[in-house]
Amino acid sequence: MSQAAHPPEAPDHSGALSYEQAGVQYDLIDPLKVAAQRAAASTARHLVAKGHAEIEGSRGESAYVVDVGPFHVASIVECLGTKTLVADEMQRLTRKPYFAGIAQDTIAMAVNDLITVGATPLVVQAYWAAGGSAWFADQARAQSLVQGWKDACDVCRVAWGGGETPALAGIVEEGRIDLAAACTGIVNPKARLSLGDDLAAGDAIVLLGSSGIHANGLSLARKLVERLPQGYLTEIEPGLLYGDALLAPTVLYSPVTEALWAAGVPVHYAANITGHGWRKLLRHPKALSYRVHTVPPVPAVLRFIQQQAKMSDEDAYGTLNMGAGFALFVAADLAQKTVDVAKACGVPAWVAGEVSAGAKALHIEPLGLHFSGADLQLR
Amino acid sequence: MSQAAHPPEAPDHSGALSYEQAGVQYDLIDPLKVAAQRAAASTARHLVAKGHAEIEGSRGESAYVVDVGPFHVASIVECLGTKTLVADEMQRLTRKPYFAGIAQDTIAMAVNDLITVGATPLVVQAYWAAGGSAWFADQARAQSLVQGWKDACDVCRVAWGGGETPALAGIVEEGRIDLAAACTGIVNPKARLSLGDDLAAGDAIVLLGSSGIHANGLSLARKLVERLPQGYLTEIEPGLLYGDALLAPTVLYSPVTEALWAAGVPVHYAANITGHGWRKLLRHPKALSYRVHTVPPVPAVLRFIQQQAKMSDEDAYGTLNMGAGFALFVAADLAQKTVDVAKACGVPAWVAGEVSAGAKALHIEPLGLHFSGADLQLR
Repeated sequence: MSQAAHPPEAPDHSGALSYEQAGVQYDLIDPLKVAAQRAAASTARHLVAKGHAEIEGSRGESAYVVDVGPFHVASIVECLGTKTLVADEMQRLTRKPYFAGIAQDTIAMAVNDLITVGATPLVVQAYWAAGGSAWFADQARAQSLVQGWKDACDVCRVAWGGGETPALAGIVEEGRIDLAAACTGIVNPKARLSLGDDLAAGDAIVLLGSSGIHANGLSLARKLVERLPQGYLTEIEPGLLYGDALLAPTVLYSPVTEALWAAGVPVHYAANITGHGWRKLLRHPKALSYRVHTVPPVPAVLRFIQQQAKMSDEDAYGTLNMGAGFALFVAADLAQKTVDVAKACGVPAWVAGEVSAGAKALHIEPLGLHFSGADLQLR
Repeated sequence: MSQAAHPPEAPDHSGALSYEQAGVQYDLIDPLKVAAQRAAASTARHLVAKGHAEIEGSRGESAYVVDVGPFHVASIVECLGTKTLVADEMQRLTRKPYFAGIAQDTIAMAVNDLITVGATPLVVQAYWAAGGSAWFADQARAQSLVQGWKDACDVCRVAWGGGETPALAGIVEEGRIDLAAACTGIVNPKARLSLGDDLAAGDAIVLLGSSGIHANGLSLARKLVERLPQGYLTEIEPGLLYGDALLAPTVLYSPVTEALWAAGVPVHYAANITGHGWRKLLRHPKALSYRVHTVPPVPAVLRFIQQQAKMSDEDAYGTLNMGAGFALFVAADLAQKTVDVAKACGVPAWVAGEVSAGAKALHIEPLGLHFSGADLQLR
């Protein structure tokens, strides 16, 4: 129940597409989430009875953390979402399998969230629920899913523990697959916990580059296809099809967080920039201002979506990652080192801004954009 | 990838229903599982690089176990399956919400598997993927899911860490929900690990009672409805509707395994009796014979299914739990104590048989049934 909240309404100028128009109605989900969060919080006492303790600050964060004595255990389950619908359609159009990238996306959803709390991911479990046994009969597609899953585990250096491959005719639509990943890790030593206790004015904001849309905003991206005469085969720049660009796999950020710890860079806080776009920079409850002075280049596919959906910069940065897939908050004197470590891992990175005292707000100065704390309600 | 294999073909007498006829085609899934298992096994080296180690014997068992030093960490993700289709139909017929029981079923799928390795479950994560936001608009149903989930966590004394509630229009069918649970636990002390190293001739087999069909065999149970003029409203005994009987929630067995450890009863091995019915007693790879001398009473709903589907005892016991939802293998002199501990937890239990030397086989003596090791291929 760590994800929630209302994206902003899209402005009412003709041709603009909002999330609600794309079929996601957050207001129908939220009351359930509130009830679930309350019920879930009440169960923490069971850990105490076993001699352990919940890290209370992890409730509402991206992964749940339990103090088991010598270290903390973190765990999470994350859904891929609807990106497979793009892969299915592109496979139909091009006859190529896209599920290696989809596998990486699914693991990224879990691992990139788990590492925000300072955890080293240890084990990934696969959840592949197909609409029927026939899904698995397409050997090329199935093998690309397996290979991509393994490759992503290798990049993140996690063990693939096992998983479930149910055939759920009547629940999952025929020909479709519902993909998710569960991940368990440890925070060791406990000092690696990065729930924001050390987040403070003066910290630097380091942004890590995204590869494209990653796995959030796909409902909008799919809705947009209906407006394109060539659909997914539209060239968004010479030689790059819209469908292929959408299917660029999500960057796996755990090599960066592991390398940072090894290099002696403590992370004060981290935010996985998924749904709600850059508003995720406002995730921590502390009253702090976030000033961004450097904006990463926008991947072609996100620039294209913004233009085609006629989204304002406010909508685009408030909904999509716009080139920044992950944010790290570190001591200012370690900001450049953080960038260097990320780049050494092959991940583009920028010292993008700083944390300052003041009302909770995000200022993206080069674009003249301002979001307040009220623009993000995740808890 | 811990679950797999082919159920036996149903005998070819008229009117008999087999799993294949009910729509589950295992032969289309298996090649993928083999590829996935191989790929997964190759990732264990990443744990070693981090100073940890896979417990190799847990591959192919019901949960994956990692030695993290002071204790082991176990993790799993499990799907409920298609039991929600019965709940949906019964809600339509009776206007009552059934999702509290469904929540318990889902948690049972994960927790009852996790405990087989000797783990104490610590954290459950919820995976509730709906066919659209509208699923959550039925407040009574949604609240019963939340309440049932919390209640099951309370019974198992696990913390509900959080989860995902995606709305997956286009992947999950409209009006349906795909439910799964991820569970993380610890094996502490390490001596609690129950992967069968101590399983030996002379051990006793203790069976724990089931509440009915639990969450395996539902495809068959649903197929059968088409033959019943009253469908789910058929009285299978006075005052008990088929639909209500099917929806009896799965027994949660973790209170028993926790109580056994507290009472000083080491479990040599444990098997969660789910798909493949009593053939799960043959789960451990050791060449041992299992002689059952006492068969628990068969719940009315399973007796009804066997009769209506014209299943032989061999098919019924080889596919369904037939009243035994969980098996414990313990030292013979602790068998009665095991039964007493289970009963003190409110779970019916029987000293049902014994392990003996000999070729891998299960003999259910009161019924004259014999299964060989070849009848169960889970790895």
